[in-house]
Amino acid sequence: MHGIAVIPGDGIGPEVIEQALLVLDKVSSKFGVKFEYIFIDAGGCAIDKYGVPIREEDLELVKKCEATLLGAVGGPKWDGLPGNLRPEQALLKLRGGLKVYANLRPAVLYDELKDSSPLKKEIVDKGIDILVVRELIGGMYFGPKGREVKDGDEVAYDTEVYSKSEVRRIAKVAFEAARKRKKKVTSVDKANILESSRLWRETVEEVAKDYPDVELSHMYVDNASMQLVKDPSQFDVILTSNMFGDILSDEASMIVGSIGMLASASLGEGSVGLYEPIHGTAPDIAGQDLANPIATILSAAMMLRYSFDMEDAAKAIENAVKIALKEGYRTKDIYTENCKLVGTKQMGKIICENI
Amino acid sequence: MHGIAVIPGDGIGPEVIEQALLVLDKVSSKFGVKFEYIFIDAGGCAIDKYGVPIREEDLELVKKCEATLLGAVGGPKWDGLPGNLRPEQALLKLRGGLKVYANLRPAVLYDELKDSSPLKKEIVDKGIDILVVRELIGGMYFGPKGREVKDGDEVAYDTEVYSKSEVRRIAKVAFEAARKRKKKVTSVDKANILESSRLWRETVEEVAKDYPDVELSHMYVDNASMQLVKDPSQFDVILTSNMFGDILSDEASMIVGSIGMLASASLGEGSVGLYEPIHGTAPDIAGQDLANPIATILSAAMMLRYSFDMEDAAKAIENAVKIALKEGYRTKDIYTENCKLVGTKQMGKIICENI
Ligand SMILES: CC(C)[C@H](C(=O)O)[C@@H](O)C(=O)O
Ligand SMILES: CC(C)[C@H](C(=O)O)[C@@H](O)C(=O)O
Repeated sequence: MHGIAVIPGDGIGPEVIEQALLVLDKVSSKFGVKFEYIFIDAGGCAIDKYGVPIREEDLELVKKCEATLLGAVGGPKWDGLPGNLRPEQALLKLRGGLKVYANLRPAVLYDELKDSSPLKKEIVDKGIDILVVRELIGGMYFGPKGREVKDGDEVAYDTEVYSKSEVRRIAKVAFEAARKRKKKVTSVDKANILESSRLWRETVEEVAKDYPDVELSHMYVDNASMQLVKDPSQFDVILTSNMFGDILSDEASMIVGSIGMLASASLGEGSVGLYEPIHGTAPDIAGQDLANPIATILSAAMMLRYSFDMEDAAKAIENAVKIALKEGYRTKDIYTENCKLVGTKQMGKIICENI
Repeated sequence: MHGIAVIPGDGIGPEVIEQALLVLDKVSSKFGVKFEYIFIDAGGCAIDKYGVPIREEDLELVKKCEATLLGAVGGPKWDGLPGNLRPEQALLKLRGGLKVYANLRPAVLYDELKDSSPLKKEIVDKGIDILVVRELIGGMYFGPKGREVKDGDEVAYDTEVYSKSEVRRIAKVAFEAARKRKKKVTSVDKANILESSRLWRETVEEVAKDYPDVELSHMYVDNASMQLVKDPSQFDVILTSNMFGDILSDEASMIVGSIGMLASASLGEGSVGLYEPIHGTAPDIAGQDLANPIATILSAAMMLRYSFDMEDAAKAIENAVKIALKEGYRTKDIYTENCKLVGTKQMGKIICENI
């Protein structure tokens, strides 16, 4: 029996989570394993219900589970609230509370979806298979921040701060991942300007000594944002900070065609993990059976792989998704001519059947 | 007589500056105006010569000129130096010293160069004409930074800090620019996480009240990095911070095909200005007559427009560039089949002849 905290969240979150749970149910019967789902309110819905993005007691509950599966949180409805009361605070509390410092965001171009990429055929034909390893519980997201009045002028600040030990542990994750892939790590920073980036670079160099089989290069973040568009095939593992990773992983997800396809895993020490699609709550299409559930379903697959060591089951899900695509089924976000347009529920059902 | 500080810098800097000066000479004779060039060493070459990225006395000289034209600074040769001794420090000293807080980076897709864009035809056919207005002397670039040892762990930090008055003045530049364009400002921040972004957003809202004819929207930086690739035609003026502007303006420059084409102007109060191509020193092609001088030539055009109020001369240069492209002349970076490949010098010469 595996205890899973399930956080549907806001917008399309509940709809895509529903399909992921059906997929897990199928895995459960097929692989003879039991999952217990503990439903938790977090994000905008928790603000509406309890006045806070996530209650302390709920956070404690989540921490007791083996893994967490999250839909998405946030929406324009709660955008006017002060910083500490926004839905996004739930994400930060979960990430920080679970100490999941390593955010893995694979951006893979599916052959079937090549046409959905905004990049030219010559570029996508070279293939895109990038793993962004983003530091998740440090940097400007968690550093000291505040406001003050100085000489009558209001001033606000955030602090980008990294320690050697923080950089070391995330760098290790990147090098380990690269070993199982194409053995290339591109560490992205702004070492020509930022002191924190210089510490980052030095530390990554130190860690690299333990991985002589992995090729390390450094790239400035401004250049990385260009290179991702110019020739994404040059990248294998991208290792970067919380803030830069936020920007670059979204860019990477766009160039592979649909953000509705991309899963993520956030890992800490041991087998604890937080799994969520990369996409947001998409309030404009919420409740209309239009959302693509694949990113959340693939996040569940990552959960099986990393938190429950169920590689076979993870592969079975990934394979079921590939079959659905091969058979031409598409939700609206990835629809191209001559494909079969399906809704959220039907896509979930088809994937279940393929397992 | 206009006094211009000329800073060739490193790598391809001197080559592209040489062509821009020939163009200015042509303008000088054609429009009956005199320029005095004051050559200044800055960047890696100054480190080699004087041990510092720029000497204080040279900075003072630059400040006395009406405008500054800069090639590019930096290179791997100086990458190992400590933070305050890097070539890039010259840039920061120049920007800070001249108080040029508004960095204008137009990213325009030339019809002739559509094929050079990495984006699909459907996307570029909608046109790309973006002006990135980047705050240039604040934020993490200039905020408090340092290192310390905490509980035996080395820690480094940088501070993203903005005051209301800093945001107000850069926002005004964006709104004024939008008025002369498509009247749309997209302000990019990370207000769901950063306190400095929340101040940024509030202040931009306040400034917007004085520009009811301009449409303002806000976008998170991660989303902006996706939207730039997905549908760049949605943008007119992008207003953003120093750090985000660094990343997004490079991305914007890549999608229009060649960074070798893009100029920038950095303005402060009054007519003072620092003009430079967006591209770097490109050490791999330096000294081989391969660099594209157009970005620097167009930077000189911006100088004529903003610092010397010579709109006609600026237009004449821009027009001369367009003719050269229309006639099929291309440096290597923008070369496509059936065009006429030329070197740095020949491209400069052709543009001069077209004025
Ligand atoms: C919603 C937001 C706080 C979050 C982040 O910036 O980390 C999101 O963009 C993400 O990348 O997961
Ligand atoms: C060279 C570097 C310091 C500089 C910056 O980050 O501002 C450059 O990337 C730019 O955009 O002009």
